[in-house]
Amino acid sequence: MRDIAVFSGSAHPELAAEVCSHLGVPLHPVRVSRFANDCLEVQLQANCRERDVYLIQPLVAPVQENLVELLLMLDAARGASAARTTVVMPHYAYARSDKKDAPRISIGGRLVADLMVAAGASRVLAMTLHSPQVHGFFSVPVDHLHALRELAAHFRHSDLSNAVVVSPDLGNAKEAAAFARMLGVPVAAGAKQRFSDDRVSIASVIGEVAGRDVIVLDDEIAKGSTVLELLERLRELGVASVRVACTHGLFSSGALGRLGAQPEVREIVCTNTVPVPADDRTDKLTVLSIAPALAEAMRRIHNGESVSALFDEN
Amino acid sequence: MRDIAVFSGSAHPELAAEVCSHLGVPLHPVRVSRFANDCLEVQLQANCRERDVYLIQPLVAPVQENLVELLLMLDAARGASAARTTVVMPHYAYARSDKKDAPRISIGGRLVADLMVAAGASRVLAMTLHSPQVHGFFSVPVDHLHALRELAAHFRHSDLSNAVVVSPDLGNAKEAAAFARMLGVPVAAGAKQRFSDDRVSIASVIGEVAGRDVIVLDDEIAKGSTVLELLERLRELGVASVRVACTHGLFSSGALGRLGAQPEVREIVCTNTVPVPADDRTDKLTVLSIAPALAEAMRRIHNGESVSALFDEN
Amino acid sequence: MRDIAVFSGSAHPELAAEVCSHLGVPLHPVRVSRFANDCLEVQLQANCRERDVYLIQPLVAPVQENLVELLLMLDAARGASAARTTVVMPHYAYARSDKKDAPRISIGGRLVADLMVAAGASRVLAMTLHSPQVHGFFSVPVDHLHALRELAAHFRHSDLSNAVVVSPDLGNAKEAAAFARMLGVPVAAGAKQRFSDDRVSIASVIGEVAGRDVIVLDDEIAKGSTVLELLERLRELGVASVRVACTHGLFSSGALGRLGAQPEVREIVCTNTVPVPADDRTDKLTVLSIAPALAEAMRRIHNGESVSALFDEN
Amino acid sequence: MRDIAVFSGSAHPELAAEVCSHLGVPLHPVRVSRFANDCLEVQLQANCRERDVYLIQPLVAPVQENLVELLLMLDAARGASAARTTVVMPHYAYARSDKKDAPRISIGGRLVADLMVAAGASRVLAMTLHSPQVHGFFSVPVDHLHALRELAAHFRHSDLSNAVVVSPDLGNAKEAAAFARMLGVPVAAGAKQRFSDDRVSIASVIGEVAGRDVIVLDDEIAKGSTVLELLERLRELGVASVRVACTHGLFSSGALGRLGAQPEVREIVCTNTVPVPADDRTDKLTVLSIAPALAEAMRRIHNGESVSALFDEN
Amino acid sequence: MRDIAVFSGSAHPELAAEVCSHLGVPLHPVRVSRFANDCLEVQLQANCRERDVYLIQPLVAPVQENLVELLLMLDAARGASAARTTVVMPHYAYARSDKKDAPRISIGGRLVADLMVAAGASRVLAMTLHSPQVHGFFSVPVDHLHALRELAAHFRHSDLSNAVVVSPDLGNAKEAAAFARMLGVPVAAGAKQRFSDDRVSIASVIGEVAGRDVIVLDDEIAKGSTVLELLERLRELGVASVRVACTHGLFSSGALGRLGAQPEVREIVCTNTVPVPADDRTDKLTVLSIAPALAEAMRRIHNGESVSALFDEN
Amino acid sequence: MRDIAVFSGSAHPELAAEVCSHLGVPLHPVRVSRFANDCLEVQLQANCRERDVYLIQPLVAPVQENLVELLLMLDAARGASAARTTVVMPHYAYARSDKKDAPRISIGGRLVADLMVAAGASRVLAMTLHSPQVHGFFSVPVDHLHALRELAAHFRHSDLSNAVVVSPDLGNAKEAAAFARMLGVPVAAGAKQRFSDDRVSIASVIGEVAGRDVIVLDDEIAKGSTVLELLERLRELGVASVRVACTHGLFSSGALGRLGAQPEVREIVCTNTVPVPADDRTDKLTVLSIAPALAEAMRRIHNGESVSALFDEN
Repeated sequence: MRDIAVFSGSAHPELAAEVCSHLGVPLHPVRVSRFANDCLEVQLQANCRERDVYLIQPLVAPVQENLVELLLMLDAARGASAARTTVVMPHYAYARSDKKDAPRISIGGRLVADLMVAAGASRVLAMTLHSPQVHGFFSVPVDHLHALRELAAHFRHSDLSNAVVVSPDLGNAKEAAAFARMLGVPVAAGAKQRFSDDRVSIASVIGEVAGRDVIVLDDEIAKGSTVLELLERLRELGVASVRVACTHGLFSSGALGRLGAQPEVREIVCTNTVPVPADDRTDKLTVLSIAPALAEAMRRIHNGESVSALFDEN
Repeated sequence: MRDIAVFSGSAHPELAAEVCSHLGVPLHPVRVSRFANDCLEVQLQANCRERDVYLIQPLVAPVQENLVELLLMLDAARGASAARTTVVMPHYAYARSDKKDAPRISIGGRLVADLMVAAGASRVLAMTLHSPQVHGFFSVPVDHLHALRELAAHFRHSDLSNAVVVSPDLGNAKEAAAFARMLGVPVAAGAKQRFSDDRVSIASVIGEVAGRDVIVLDDEIAKGSTVLELLERLRELGVASVRVACTHGLFSSGALGRLGAQPEVREIVCTNTVPVPADDRTDKLTVLSIAPALAEAMRRIHNGESVSALFDEN
Repeated sequence: MRDIAVFSGSAHPELAAEVCSHLGVPLHPVRVSRFANDCLEVQLQANCRERDVYLIQPLVAPVQENLVELLLMLDAARGASAARTTVVMPHYAYARSDKKDAPRISIGGRLVADLMVAAGASRVLAMTLHSPQVHGFFSVPVDHLHALRELAAHFRHSDLSNAVVVSPDLGNAKEAAAFARMLGVPVAAGAKQRFSDDRVSIASVIGEVAGRDVIVLDDEIAKGSTVLELLERLRELGVASVRVACTHGLFSSGALGRLGAQPEVREIVCTNTVPVPADDRTDKLTVLSIAPALAEAMRRIHNGESVSALFDEN
Repeated sequence: MRDIAVFSGSAHPELAAEVCSHLGVPLHPVRVSRFANDCLEVQLQANCRERDVYLIQPLVAPVQENLVELLLMLDAARGASAARTTVVMPHYAYARSDKKDAPRISIGGRLVADLMVAAGASRVLAMTLHSPQVHGFFSVPVDHLHALRELAAHFRHSDLSNAVVVSPDLGNAKEAAAFARMLGVPVAAGAKQRFSDDRVSIASVIGEVAGRDVIVLDDEIAKGSTVLELLERLRELGVASVRVACTHGLFSSGALGRLGAQPEVREIVCTNTVPVPADDRTDKLTVLSIAPALAEAMRRIHNGESVSALFDEN
Repeated sequence: MRDIAVFSGSAHPELAAEVCSHLGVPLHPVRVSRFANDCLEVQLQANCRERDVYLIQPLVAPVQENLVELLLMLDAARGASAARTTVVMPHYAYARSDKKDAPRISIGGRLVADLMVAAGASRVLAMTLHSPQVHGFFSVPVDHLHALRELAAHFRHSDLSNAVVVSPDLGNAKEAAAFARMLGVPVAAGAKQRFSDDRVSIASVIGEVAGRDVIVLDDEIAKGSTVLELLERLRELGVASVRVACTHGLFSSGALGRLGAQPEVREIVCTNTVPVPADDRTDKLTVLSIAPALAEAMRRIHNGESVSALFDEN
Repeated sequence: MRDIAVFSGSAHPELAAEVCSHLGVPLHPVRVSRFANDCLEVQLQANCRERDVYLIQPLVAPVQENLVELLLMLDAARGASAARTTVVMPHYAYARSDKKDAPRISIGGRLVADLMVAAGASRVLAMTLHSPQVHGFFSVPVDHLHALRELAAHFRHSDLSNAVVVSPDLGNAKEAAAFARMLGVPVAAGAKQRFSDDRVSIASVIGEVAGRDVIVLDDEIAKGSTVLELLERLRELGVASVRVACTHGLFSSGALGRLGAQPEVREIVCTNTVPVPADDRTDKLTVLSIAPALAEAMRRIHNGESVSALFDEN
């Protein structure tokens, strides 16, 4: 069996270290230099030849820096004769650019997928892509994980007798329904009308929520506008309590602070697919680790075991 | 004849406007948006269908932002059915990453060339690439201009009877010799020993410079360390005066100020392939425009006339 | 300007003839032979050299026969030196295979897109793809039309004072909302829970429908199970009347007869993106032609005019 | 050594089962679904990750259905991270479309080869391609087997003292000569003049056949018109007896019945590269199995042993 | 309409000049240099930008020199922004390497086709390829001409009342039959058994030849061994006279002298697809020019007219 | 671990045999045939299936023959199912064609790199490429060795107390400086002005050489004009003695004789990357073997060990 070699870009070294610790392999060092002309140079500082190389890099801000850094790492691994290079991308920000809703724009999710392949990616390990169709943007195999098991395990520790899962958006309703099934509780959804990137309006909530302990589930929370609008509706509908859960806790523009300041919000739960901003913490925040899941998927990929089997039972 | 459509990215809109003014065509607007998750969206705001599209974008700081923006523009033009898309890249920063001088690094100049082609570039119009071999990194046609004619026209206005062209680096000596021939003066060169990205040491100067009016010629000046070291040697060798010329005036880290502060430096001449930093100006600086040369090359490319003929005489 | 050459496969020659009549160009003949070993041979029976070739072929049953026939036509056009070959595919059946909802299946919508490009497609003209992300499955330019203008023009001729547009599915709700805006009426949606390919269950309807004249809007109707379930809910909710509208009227397995037999259904409206089954007609059926829209898009593509501008005003 | 994983499409599951039995490995199940819109979905129902995958599918009627099914299986295996996917195609029907004998047709044999590669084929195991040049249509390695050893072994059990091998066609004469050498008997050939797909005329027979026990050898028999015309000539020339042998026994349009009804035909011998039609059997028919040969070739491919060595001795 | 630009490699400049004279366009000069290390450099000495470029180069000895020279010309034209580059290859020597008749050899005809495309060929204009399947080796459009009309026009000037066309080889029999139909005479064929590259043995001649005026037709004559063996058989069979015709008159190893020395050979007719060796002429030789046919095909390709129509009538 | 299989083309079988002897593996035979039409056929005469194949072929005269032979070997290995094919190319002649110094020429170094990849090269093992940027011309991994250690080991056996390394060319000065560091001696350089391929002029020598024991170091010596001009300058400058060293001893046009005839030249040292011409030997010549270095690199490539580590110390 070929050896494994794991490297991390600059985006989220803590997660990479945790993954390696679960795998019981070293996280090899990477030297990133910036020249006077602002160009990057990345050196993988361990032998890649005939290795099964994994590059861990979620696409988080600064997205363009992290993306180009990743492309340079991919090309370096290819040039260094890696047997196979897997991009471990727990958060693929460009997945949101998945359709052409205006003329003469790029479908960024497809373009960036092509760029990664052009730079040498043999496969991708992704988590909770914004829409399931984004899987089809890649011309290389994608293993697409989700974090519902981790989130469900967390909420099962609390009283769910009066709980309901609420999706802020119809688009995410299928995932919310699956999550509700895992918890054995009902599901509801907001009917969101999006006007622009940062102004949204929730017209109504479908399903019974009055007097309930609500668990809001979204795939990602960036500015948090959608969830804040939903909270307003839920307040009007007289819910008992609210907990907010998501996979990708981007929490940009002070979102964490604003969410934490809502009195009915008891808890905010996310995973560590992206680094949580340090200057915007709230003690209502719980960060679950998806490092064990990533490590197990990488182990199975490396050993040629089924990854889909990971999700057979919950 | 197909219509022409010219767009500019964020890197250097002033140059693009000047080029369009020389061409007598409008510079079409581009909308660049940044989402909450730091991803970019670029919309070309004029019809591209069956057009001969030109995207003007030198790779200057912030290089990664400008590069990804360019790739999104290329993909947008392709998706919008452009007949042909030419990248007009007056400065290709990644051309300096042209060899593998350490194991397990990317040859960034080749990788970025491949990325542009993957995103939809049909051809490239470049200027004074760091080494002539970089031309061979592209799998699409490259028209490779230089700015020696513009620089020579400037210096011909001054007294050249005692002048000598000095290249700070042996690697640039061929270009310096060609420039010296255009001016009808002798050439000399520094023998540079580079230790790291920002520490260099000039061991000696080859050729006669004592008592001469030196014209230092380099392809680009970033931090300026090389030129500053050379100035020290020239001072020791008793030169009469110094003028500094380059094509790409990057002038990072206060280079312009430091160079301007050297007493023997009478003039610093560069072109506008890159925007000159506004906060670091010196009245010794002269910026020549290469917009007419770019416009003429674009006109010839568009009309199917020879571009190499541009450089036949003089 | 290059000449245009339009050919039709076996899938829907009536539509092709109508498109050509609107364009004022001949529909060139195609010879399709089947050998004793069941292989197909397709001959394009008009000169393609340097022509702007259009191949009209919706992917309808028999899908595999029509697909391979199209691929053979594409390759024939390429080998015959066509300047450009555009697939005019008013219905792309494999667009429904747009995600990997089970392990070890193909994402057929991506695969078939790649096959068309491998066979020689230069661009695609599609209509109402099952999900907007499918656009990103293509590596060649796609012009993506919809038929909402044609459907809206039809319904504007009737009394809309009490009307509401109802989407049977949350996934299609955005398109229904756009349609409702065009008609100036409110929108509602069924919350569909899909169990398998042919068994669905509508749990509830979101929005006000009681006493209303409902216009059900879906992108396509195949077996019609979803709409039939929705009709049951609408009946329970006491709607005043129902009209059913869709772009792709596949109407398989006697769907047209079953829908027409529902007493509250006053009208069934579809377009001719696919041939309507002859043996299953009902006098409630109205088929609108999208041939003028296709012809206009083809004219603009051929002449290098903007296609997106077609949809600027409603 | 990587594990092997063998799957069969719908074309010839009996052959696949027999091959697996010879290999001593399980034939993994495949789920083929047909949606209401006539699209196929194929699920490989065993782990493919890092496996050496073999997909057994001769291209027989319904050819287009079987081809698209195969392409979906290939893409599924690729997406499921197969280490390598080999198409085992005992009969490649489109190999007959090997030249451009009319303008503006596709060379289907090349196109379908490219489609298989586009869908993910790493290599192909073929048998008795219609012409040896078809090998060159593939951009992936092809192992090209023939069934002459199996056919020769069968005929060696009978009296060959008065036998002659007759090729119905000059194009197949080389293979007939090789077969005759294996049997130690002389060879003759019909001079066929083909007028259209189903009307042929045999002008003459080259070589001595009068009073001989003729073994007619062809690569494939579909409608059988060629062989029937040849039988007429042979009858006129006074042959003693006739046996008919071929590799691919397609026997379409009642060919088996018609051939079996010829009084001088003592035996019809074919192999099971394609399923023999059940409703057209004759007791003159002998079907030889090429499953052992396919299994041995697959074993050698899997183990990295020479396949050509299989054919070194006869 | 784009301008045309025609260049010739070193292989056959006389033919190129004649083609250009028929087209009424200049043959642009090409500079071929050989460096001290034996590498070639080829400069196209006329503007190619946006031109419709034609490179005339039959693959004749020295084949490898001429092939690499052609590849360098193709790449030069691409890099010089040619709009389209057509290889005019009247003789494609590697077409004979069209199958894998031994293990671990290359199918050279496919490889060289791929190399030409890799170097930048947009299309190919070929003549009388060794087998029609070679057409399918190219991934770019091929216009495949033959010279039967030119040969037939020549022979129609003589008395054909007693003539018969004889193909030396069964493989070439179809072309001989077509030629015989054009002349209105019968056809016969040798049954060749090839043992090695330069030793052949003709076992028999199929068809009536005794007392006839034989026209031997082959696609190419290199060493001439096949034809010489056939002549021996024809002599034994008592033919009245022999004329030898072929498209590609390679005449290597003194073949022309040997053939001319046969007393029954009255005339040897070939075309100028390849240069006829100057030191081996015989006054029995007639060289027909295919320059008018090439020029007419190039004119039609350039103007977008049908090339196949050229061959509709004879 | 996969087996290794090493083959040699016609260019330098002695080196290949020596490499195999160091590796302790057989050099498998290759059959090269030339057909009557001057086409080559190459047969690899050992099983390649799943093997790690190495093809040893420096690009030396006759370059075009050796190049096409190599391309045929590559394609044969691919078609024979080699797991991986490495081109071992100790001298890459086309690396000198690394820039576009005239319009409408090919950058041959990039083209030939692409041709090797098109023919099936998985990776390349090269030595002392003419410029380090040529590495970036390859789209497959390149292991780039140099021979400075071998050359240094040789010179360390002599008295270096008064030695200086002189590069004839500024372009090669970096390599000369590295070599001087290895020997612990100073460095100097000629300032070469190249006028054409075979006429050069050395204007001056930079650095102290008077009275010194000069070691001239160049990457390759072909006609030797550069070195001969340098020797004239060194003579004028009064050097004590001269030894000439290079990696690639092409020695064309009697260069070895001319160099050996210079009285101050004490020794000429090269390696066996290319075969030394037998008819032009001088007893001043020492040929060092790089076979051990190539063998060690191949061993490491095969075993997945770092090749760059080979150059870490000394």
